[in-house]
Amino acid sequence: MALREHTLMMRALAYREGQLQFREDEPTPVLQPGQALLKIRKAGLCHTDLELSRGYLGFSGVLGHEFVAEVVDGSPEWVGKRVAGEINVPCGTCDMCRHDVPSQCRNRTTVGIDRHPGAFADYLALDERCLHVLPDTISDDAAVFVEPLAAALHILEATHILPGHRVVLVGAGKLGLLMAQVVAQTGADLTVVSRRDSTQALLKRWGIASALLEDLPLAQADVVIESTGAADGFDGAMALVKPRGTMIMKSTFVGLTPANLTKAVIDEIRLIGSRCGPFDAAIRMLANGRIDTQSLIDARYPFADALAAFEHAQRPGALKVMLDF
Amino acid sequence: MALREHTLMMRALAYREGQLQFREDEPTPVLQPGQALLKIRKAGLCHTDLELSRGYLGFSGVLGHEFVAEVVDGSPEWVGKRVAGEINVPCGTCDMCRHDVPSQCRNRTTVGIDRHPGAFADYLALDERCLHVLPDTISDDAAVFVEPLAAALHILEATHILPGHRVVLVGAGKLGLLMAQVVAQTGADLTVVSRRDSTQALLKRWGIASALLEDLPLAQADVVIESTGAADGFDGAMALVKPRGTMIMKSTFVGLTPANLTKAVIDEIRLIGSRCGPFDAAIRMLANGRIDTQSLIDARYPFADALAAFEHAQRPGALKVMLDF
Repeated sequence: MALREHTLMMRALAYREGQLQFREDEPTPVLQPGQALLKIRKAGLCHTDLELSRGYLGFSGVLGHEFVAEVVDGSPEWVGKRVAGEINVPCGTCDMCRHDVPSQCRNRTTVGIDRHPGAFADYLALDERCLHVLPDTISDDAAVFVEPLAAALHILEATHILPGHRVVLVGAGKLGLLMAQVVAQTGADLTVVSRRDSTQALLKRWGIASALLEDLPLAQADVVIESTGAADGFDGAMALVKPRGTMIMKSTFVGLTPANLTKAVIDEIRLIGSRCGPFDAAIRMLANGRIDTQSLIDARYPFADALAAFEHAQRPGALKVMLDF
Repeated sequence: MALREHTLMMRALAYREGQLQFREDEPTPVLQPGQALLKIRKAGLCHTDLELSRGYLGFSGVLGHEFVAEVVDGSPEWVGKRVAGEINVPCGTCDMCRHDVPSQCRNRTTVGIDRHPGAFADYLALDERCLHVLPDTISDDAAVFVEPLAAALHILEATHILPGHRVVLVGAGKLGLLMAQVVAQTGADLTVVSRRDSTQALLKRWGIASALLEDLPLAQADVVIESTGAADGFDGAMALVKPRGTMIMKSTFVGLTPANLTKAVIDEIRLIGSRCGPFDAAIRMLANGRIDTQSLIDARYPFADALAAFEHAQRPGALKVMLDF
């Protein structure tokens, strides 16, 4: 089923010239060597999409980087496969690629984030090196969570969480609730900071403790995960880290953080930035049924209503908003 | 030689009520259980002393935490010994003490920095657990560097610097030039950022490369050590760290740092605060002659001229200013 059999126009949700636009006349991508043509089946809205629409990274183009798709053109071994896709498209030759860290490729583009079209469109042309086949045991709904679950799993790559550690997660949004499930499986003593009744109830159902930030003891946590998505979340989270403890930083946003780094020096704290993680492990965990993704779906919209879906995703406390193609 | 044989008044350089004061009527300390009485032989001025005199930590009292002294009262096994002293006085019972990190004791006081009188005085009463005997091969001059050299050595505890690593040290002050000598001994490819001709010449004599910040390639260093002592040094230093690289933070100062932590997240950088280090190792390195401390002495003042010494230490580029008792 080659591209030529499709229309040359497609639907797409783009951010251009400072505006979100739902277009029906976006050119269907032309395949470059090494690329597969993906027909998007389902996509999810991420906090980063909201930040991009506020000017983060100066992005212009089709948004979207959480998706499940079918390969409709490309190498014969890929066509017909149901896939998830890595969002970092590596050059394969720079020092980071050679050292097996392609997600940090010096010359990468990033799907729907940085100089690469995204998945909020009927079709996406993506480097075949970025594709991961999905086993049948993973539903389309669950498959949309492969990318954010991989990002959540990077916590376990960034620092060694011991079963005896006290861990506090500050920021129980879409990504936070995936990280909570990942960290809970280490056996660590996990507390998630949340003010929201519905989030507290969900955590309770998962057997995970929740608390208000002001009720937590200062400087007692071995590991704090900061995922508030806001500059003013930093110091409150760092106040929880014990001396020589670790803070994982997951928040990206426009602007600078006024941070008390002198406290980090005095208490000899480690701050570790964390972005993308291992897709293979995320697919294994979803296939094994170890992660509850259904409870994280807040709403579903047909792709034609993508602008309304975007509005929905900006509501305080909104969890995953799905786009059905 | 008990305290009672000395005068009950002594000389001291104190910071009180927002002012540096040289006093001749400071009460000589009264020994508490477990303490030794130290007669200070020599002391050094540190960047932290300057920060404390700008309101850092709200300190009030006798300054000074780099010194060599003779024990003149206390347990018989200590009296007569020439010693250096740890600056963190631990409680011995909290979780950090029990986990063998007494420098991060929850209830510590810190000599000349936090609720403990300092060494810019004729006498200092200090917990005997803080004392380290100095071998005769370490001169009084060199012994004053035990505390800052220990702090420099903490870099090697905070992160594992490999012989193949590229390391950049930003901030070639008193502490920076000790760190440079420590890092150079790992075999790593070290560059020290300095604009000062005299510093560049000294580094050259030690076989260490120097460069201007703007001439260094961005995002190429495995490890960057930030020791500028100023908030605005942070982002320039972080720009040098490669993806997944490490930045050691050594600067303490009054106020917040406007930091681009989103960059740390995207590049998955580790920021590690570093303060105090191992005295035993510092004493070994000085005894072995592995560290050039003589070249770091900028000026010597008799203690009676401590206020002039303090002025001298604030000159741009001033290295170690010594107080001779």
